[in-house]
Parts: sequence; C-alpha cells; structure tokens
Amino acid sequence: MRRRRSPDEPDEASEASEAGEAKDTGHRPSRRAALLGGSGLLGAVGLAGGFAAGQAVADDSDEGHPTVFDLYGTHQPGISTPVQDRLHFAAFDVTTASRDELIEMLREWTKAAERLMHGDSAGPVGPTSGDYRMPPDDTGEAIGLPPSRLTLTFGFGPSLFTDEEGVDRFDLAGRRPTMLAPLPHFPEDALDPERSNGDLCVQACADDPQVAVHAIRNLARIGFGTVRMRWSQLGFGKTSSTTTGEETPRNLFGFKDGTMNITADEDAELDEHVWVSPEDDPGADWLAGGSYLAVRRINMRIETWDRQPLGAQEEFIGRTKGGGAPLSGGKEHSQPDFDMEGSTGPVMPQDSHVRLVHPSHNGGARILRRGYNFVDGSSALGDLDAGLFFLAYVRDPDRQFIPMQNAMAKSDAMMEYLKFTGSALFAIPPGARKGEYIGQALFT
Amino acid sequence: MRRRRSPDEPDEASEASEAGEAKDTGHRPSRRAALLGGSGLLGAVGLAGGFAAGQAVADDSDEGHPTVFDLYGTHQPGISTPVQDRLHFAAFDVTTASRDELIEMLREWTKAAERLMHGDSAGPVGPTSGDYRMPPDDTGEAIGLPPSRLTLTFGFGPSLFTDEEGVDRFDLAGRRPTMLAPLPHFPEDALDPERSNGDLCVQACADDPQVAVHAIRNLARIGFGTVRMRWSQLGFGKTSSTTTGEETPRNLFGFKDGTMNITADEDAELDEHVWVSPEDDPGADWLAGGSYLAVRRINMRIETWDRQPLGAQEEFIGRTKGGGAPLSGGKEHSQPDFDMEGSTGPVMPQDSHVRLVHPSHNGGARILRRGYNFVDGSSALGDLDAGLFFLAYVRDPDRQFIPMQNAMAKSDAMMEYLKFTGSALFAIPPGARKGEYIGQALFT
Ligand code: HEM
Ligand code: HEM
Repeated sequence: MRRRRSPDEPDEASEASEAGEAKDTGHRPSRRAALLGGSGLLGAVGLAGGFAAGQAVADDSDEGHPTVFDLYGTHQPGISTPVQDRLHFAAFDVTTASRDELIEMLREWTKAAERLMHGDSAGPVGPTSGDYRMPPDDTGEAIGLPPSRLTLTFGFGPSLFTDEEGVDRFDLAGRRPTMLAPLPHFPEDALDPERSNGDLCVQACADDPQVAVHAIRNLARIGFGTVRMRWSQLGFGKTSSTTTGEETPRNLFGFKDGTMNITADEDAELDEHVWVSPEDDPGADWLAGGSYLAVRRINMRIETWDRQPLGAQEEFIGRTKGGGAPLSGGKEHSQPDFDMEGSTGPVMPQDSHVRLVHPSHNGGARILRRGYNFVDGSSALGDLDAGLFFLAYVRDPDRQFIPMQNAMAKSDAMMEYLKFTGSALFAIPPGARKGEYIGQALFT
Repeated sequence: MRRRRSPDEPDEASEASEAGEAKDTGHRPSRRAALLGGSGLLGAVGLAGGFAAGQAVADDSDEGHPTVFDLYGTHQPGISTPVQDRLHFAAFDVTTASRDELIEMLREWTKAAERLMHGDSAGPVGPTSGDYRMPPDDTGEAIGLPPSRLTLTFGFGPSLFTDEEGVDRFDLAGRRPTMLAPLPHFPEDALDPERSNGDLCVQACADDPQVAVHAIRNLARIGFGTVRMRWSQLGFGKTSSTTTGEETPRNLFGFKDGTMNITADEDAELDEHVWVSPEDDPGADWLAGGSYLAVRRINMRIETWDRQPLGAQEEFIGRTKGGGAPLSGGKEHSQPDFDMEGSTGPVMPQDSHVRLVHPSHNGGARILRRGYNFVDGSSALGDLDAGLFFLAYVRDPDRQFIPMQNAMAKSDAMMEYLKFTGSALFAIPPGARKGEYIGQALFT
C-alpha cells in the first residue's frame, strides 16, 4: 500500500468542522465527535446513566421526540420505545465454536451499540482519524449524520443453544427457554430458508436508513470471523406505532396498521403481554425482563389486491380503508362489535383479519407489533417483491403468537393475497446494565 | 363480493378529517384532498402553470425547500431539480403491440403523475370515496402523507423503437436517436439481465420512500395490460446533490459523493453537458430539451473494502475520506492538482477514481449524477447485497458516459471492490406542456 502522508498532519480536524455543519441542523450530538477523534462533543449530552427501560437520553428535537435512546435499562430499547420510520434487520450465524469468542464479540457489540446509538463512530478511533496503514474502525457513511433515534435490539435464536443434530454448541442448552423452538410450519407457509432463522438477530431502527444500515454493517464488520450474516431485510415505512396519539401509519394494502397495538404507556399491558417475568420459565431466568420476537416476512400479492373492490378489501380487514374504523361503526379506536348482524351475516365478517386476531378470539392475547413495509424490487413475472416485514414482541409465543398465526393461516380471507416467505423466532434478553454486555446473564 | 353498505353513507368524510391531521404538519397540500373526494384543497395551491423547467409550485417547508414540483416545463423534473433522499426506480416492458394503447397509457401516466406530484391520489376518485363494488383508483398507502417533493421522470429505452430482431414495434424506428443503443459490454460487467434494460423507465424520487413506492405502484397498476414491470430498485440515500452549498452526501464506501456534480444553478453547464439541443440529432428532434439517462447498478464488495487501510481507500478515490478534499490538498471543492508529485508517484494516483473520470482526462466531459445507495439484503455467502445505484444524465452518451465508464472499467483501482450487476440507457424526453402527455413529440 502507498503511504500518502504522516498520520499526524492536521488535515482531518480542519476538514471536520467543515463536514459537520451543514447537515446537522438542530440535532445534537452528531458524528462530528467521531471526526474530531472520538472524544469530542458527546460528553456534553450528559450520559448520567440510571435511566429506566430504553428511555431517551437527550430530547431536543423539533417535535419533542427524543433524539438519542439509551442502550442500558431494564428492557432493551427498540421494543416499547417510539417506533422509528426505517429498519435494517439482520440475522447472523455464529461461525466460531468458541464460547469465549462469542462472548467477546457480544462485549464488543455492546460497546459499539452504545456508541452508535449516540451518533458516535462504531469504534473509538473513528472513520478517518487513525493510522493510514490500518483499516478504520468505522466505515464512514454516517459521518455528519445525527443519531436519528437509532435503537439496536439483540436476540438469540434456538439454534444458538442446540444445532440441528441436537449438539450443545456453547454449553447453553441447559438454559434454553422452553418456548424458544423454531416456529412450526403454518398452513400456506412458503418459506425461503435464506430468509429464515439464525443464531443471533439485530434489529436496527432509525429515522434515517443510512444510520440503520451503517449500524448493521459495522456490527457485521466487528463480528467478522465470529459471525456471518445469514440474511437481512430493509424496511422503509413502519406499519405500527407504539406512541399513543400518533397518526397510525399504513401498510401496502393501504390500510391503517397498528391501531390496536400495545403502546409504550400501557405499563400493565406490557407486563402482561410483552415482558417475560421471572416465574415464566425458571430454567431460563436470564430472560426475565426480556421478550420473544416473532419475525415473518410476508409478501403481498399487490397486483391482485389492487384489483379487488374497495368493499371487499374492507371486509378482508374488517375495517374501513379511509379512517380505519371497525366495519361495525365508530371511530378508529372504537372496539369492534362482532355480534352486529348485517344483511348477509356479521358486519365484521367471520373471516376478517381483525376478527380472527382480536384478543376476544385469542384468549385475551395481545402482541406488540413493530413491522415495516418493504419493497425488494420485483419478480421475474413483473410483480413487486413487496409486503410487510412483520415483527411482534410477545411474552409467550406458544400462547400468543402461534395460535393467532394459526387462526389467521387457516381462516383469514386476506391469506389469498399473502405469501409467507421468511420466519424466525428469537429470545430477546433484557436490557443490560452499564458495564455489562447484552445477554450477559445467559452466560454467567 | 359482499356489499357492506351503500356508497353514499357519510362515514368516510368524517373519518377523513381525523385521518388528515396528525401527520400533515406544516406541509400543504396533502392527500387529505384525496380523502375528501379528489376535489379538495388542491385548488388553493395555485397551479397557475407556466412555470419553467421543473420548478417548484409551492415553497412552504421549514428549510425553504420546495415541497411540490411541477410536472410541466421545458425539462422534466427529477433531473436538475434538488435531489430528494429516496428513490424507487422501475423499468417496464410494453406488452401490447398497439401504438394507440401505448399512447393512451402515456396519457394516463401523465395525468396520474401530475396528481401524484401534488400529493393527490393517483386517480380522480381516490382510494376510498368510490363505489364499493369497484377497485379504488388509488392504492391508499400514501393517504395523509405530504407530496414529499415527489418527482416522476420518464424515459424510453432502445427496445421501444426496435426489438432484438430489428422489428419496428410501434412505428418509431425512424425517430430513434442515433445514440440510443444498448450500452456496450464494459470490462468486468457481470450483468443480471433481470436488472438491465427495459422499454420504458420511471424514476420516482421523494423525501419519503412510501410516497415514491406509492407512485411507481400506481403507475404500474394504471399500466396493467399495457406494460409489465421488468425490474425495480429502491435507493435509500442520495449520493449526489445538485444543490450548491448543500452538505455533500456519502456513498457506502464512506466517501463524500457528488462534490464535483453539475448543480442546478449552472445553466451553461446544463446546456453543454445535460440537455440535448435541437441540432444534436436532427432525426430525433423530439428529444431536444431532453437528456439521456445512464443507469448502472454497482454492487460494492463492502466486506473487503472495510478491511482496506484508510490510506489505500483514499488513494483509490483520490480524495480524503473525512472532508473529501483532493489528495493534492485544499478543501472539498478545490480542483485537484494531477501534476503534484509525491514520494512514490503522483499524489493523485494514476489509477485513482477522481483522476480517471475528471473532465481534464475526458475531453472536458461532465455528467449530472443522481445516484442512490442501496442495500437489498445479503447474499448466500453472508455479504451485503449493497452498493451504488448509479444514475447519470448526459447530453451525449457516446462522448460523455461511455468513454468515462470504459476508462474506469479498465484502470480504476476501485474496480477490485465493484461488481456491475445492472445496466440500461434511456432517452429522456423533454418536459411536457400542460395538456400534452410526456413524450408526445415522439408520437406526432
Ligand atoms: C401482511 C400481513 C398483515 C396485514 C396486511 C395486517 C393488517 C392489519 C390491519 C390493517 C389491522 C387493523 C388495525 C390494527 O389494529 O392494527 C391489523 C390488526 C392486527 N393484526 Fe394484522 N396484519 C397482517 C399480519 C398479521 C399477523 C401475521 C398477525 C399475527 C399473527 C397479525 C396480528 C394482528 C393483531 C393482533 C391485530 C390487532 C387486532 C385487534 O386487537 O383489534 N397481523 N392487522
Ligand atoms: C460504486 C461506484 C462509484 C463510486 C463509489 C464513486 C465514487 C466517487 C467519489 C467518491 C467521487 C469524488 C467526489 C465527487 O466529485 O463526487 C466521484 C467522482 C466522480 N465520479 Fe464516481 N463513483 C462511482 C462510479 C462512477 C461511475 C460509474 C462513473 C461514470 C462512468 C463515475 C463518474 C464520476 C465523475 C464524473 C466524478 C467527478 C469527477 C470530477 O469532476 O472531479 N463514478 N465518484
């Protein structure tokens, strides 16, 4: 390699102030700090620690939204925290056989995640201020971008505990949660193994896709030699919000999605339906305060859907397309009346989505949805490869997600317009305390 | 199909005001109009017409950016207009043999494009206010979203004029521009036919990906039976700006990209390098005021790049990674000094990208770049399927794009980290006048 100049020339620092200014309007802190050598402005944010569950550290944006989330807390961020608009989700397989190497990587991921969520570079040296003979410890495409409310949420797949032959890979089999098993094959599943499962997962959500992509890419870079990316998925528009009062976003069927989602302020509901409690699974007490994440890549038959009459579309869902009210009347957030009779049967049809997945038909079960719309180009037949990348956090997959998904797969009128192409289940450990690494309780 | 209620019940209108409010902060007009039946607020924007080349109709956003662009003008919007952050690009093949049907569809596309760019529904009825027995004429996922600076830019591929056997498909062969031929095979091209070429193209750029996706999807829906989508590509972060003074965005190699791009205010440069002049090709005078679009899907070998030393990365490009200044010194926008000698050869290496593509080594040629970063998941080997979706507008592909791409493919040090997986060339007709359809001059 050719050397251009000695690393101590002051070139970068002067460029840095030029670089940091234009894009960073009203959002602090920025990756300016990274350019200044990794020690810059971040101190000013006041990382006092001690925040509860995924709370915001700084809150200085226009809309009163937090701009920076805390990695540390009772629960991981990215579950009940406000849903950002963009997603990069990645599943990894562990390629080492060494438990120590796995732990070491989780330690490094945790350190990097803390930095990245604060809008800092992935490593302490940064993208440009190191030795010119060395690869940088950050890839640089997020220089100058604000933290963009990045959250990173980590999970463990069933195959991390025991592989297909039942081998206990990392001396973890004894601590495998009873409910952490590969999801069953549901009716109409047409799964692509290259979009399913994985030993580990990372969900990166941010307001700027470049920031989410940057985070996943740098975690993959740090994990090189220990993990290999198995599959990844970009999402561009959230389909569910967890914030009360926020306008409900829309999925690619054109319907409001997330109306009846569990919201961040429903503490009792979160405890009942999302957070694993210590008694749930005494053999896997390390998961208390964590959750399970059910992942489903659901292709929509967009072109066929678009040719269905408005009335049919509304009856498939059980809600109006405009305002999102139940077909039984009221406003968006009114409860549906499943007993109301129309001229040809219930006004909320028996095979309507909302009827089938409603708590009243699922033993009271609710789930926290956090899905995203996706478009991955188009198929050879000219159809958009598009749909809903469904993410749901639940306390008990066996009681909440699996029966609901079964009911839907068997009876939902909407199924004709869906194709399930990816699937995975992960255990989501609780939040780490400062100084710990994510998932540490599993290894100790 | 089941009928739920009579279409004249007032349910939608009351829901509409509920739906339109929360998300539509400070951006007018919104798709609220669509919900109110397609006749709503848009009159208030004052579409007086008569704007020049892709100018803004409304300018009421926070940063003084226009929020709505005009479809009509000397040139199509989406070329020299300010670059938005998100892209959905689609190539279509014409499936009808009828010239009249093709023309009729272009007419409908033009009408829809005007509506969509104003934040209105794709059709006059809208997503929810029509007959419940009919499919809506808008798919609904953009209800409530602001226009988001959407631009739609249309182009014609070589295969629209003559097919592979040389057949004159639509009586257009005689008007085919001399330079509109499939791009040659460049050294190291590894093209995927399913990501290359096409009879027509539509570039949708917007600040919100949901708005760009909504536009392409509705154009595909309108074209059903006349065209079939051949391929499509999402881009999430612009890599080039056309706005002087704007912070230069970064590509996935982490470098500022677009520094020396042609900007919207360089009228003389646009005339010299971008807009086709009437004398350029007398047999294709319909293209005057238009341009050519060279499309290259360029995969980056991200994981290998990330392991290169910082100094090597900078020498591949010929610029610093932090501030983007030429390695010969100065600031980002300083001209490089190609004669400056370092200890082991020119400071701007012979095989550096910026040297090879610089006007001084390409007969003075410049191009208007408008590319986007993309990540389409990851490969079976665990590598990100990511890179730069390169879009360049030029007046003369033979003199500007092709020699530059050849020089790069033959000598560029960066080529080791690139794989060209898609390729296409389109003729971009000039802007339409109000009442005309896009490309009308070609057919008359
Ligand atoms: C592409 C596939 C899907 C689409 C288009 C879709 C769409 C919708 C829509 C429009 C609603 C009504 C508004 C709301 O409360 O959010 C809804 C509600 C809901 N969906 Fe889905 N959904 C899909 C897949 C699933 C799956 C796979 C599950 C779980 C197995 C699920 C579970 C639920 C639940 C629990 C509700 C709330 C029901 C209530 O409490 O009223 N959905 N969905
Ligand atoms: C993934 C592939 C590519 C990458 C990463 C890349 C990156 C860059 C970077 C970092 C710059 C310097 C900053 C600037 O002026 O924008 C640049 C400049 C430029 N690139 Fe590329 N580029 C790529 C492909 C291409 C291709 C295919 C062409 C055309 C054949 C091209 C033509 C240019 C031109 C004309 C300039 C400006 C040169 C000047 O006037 O100084 N690039 N590119």
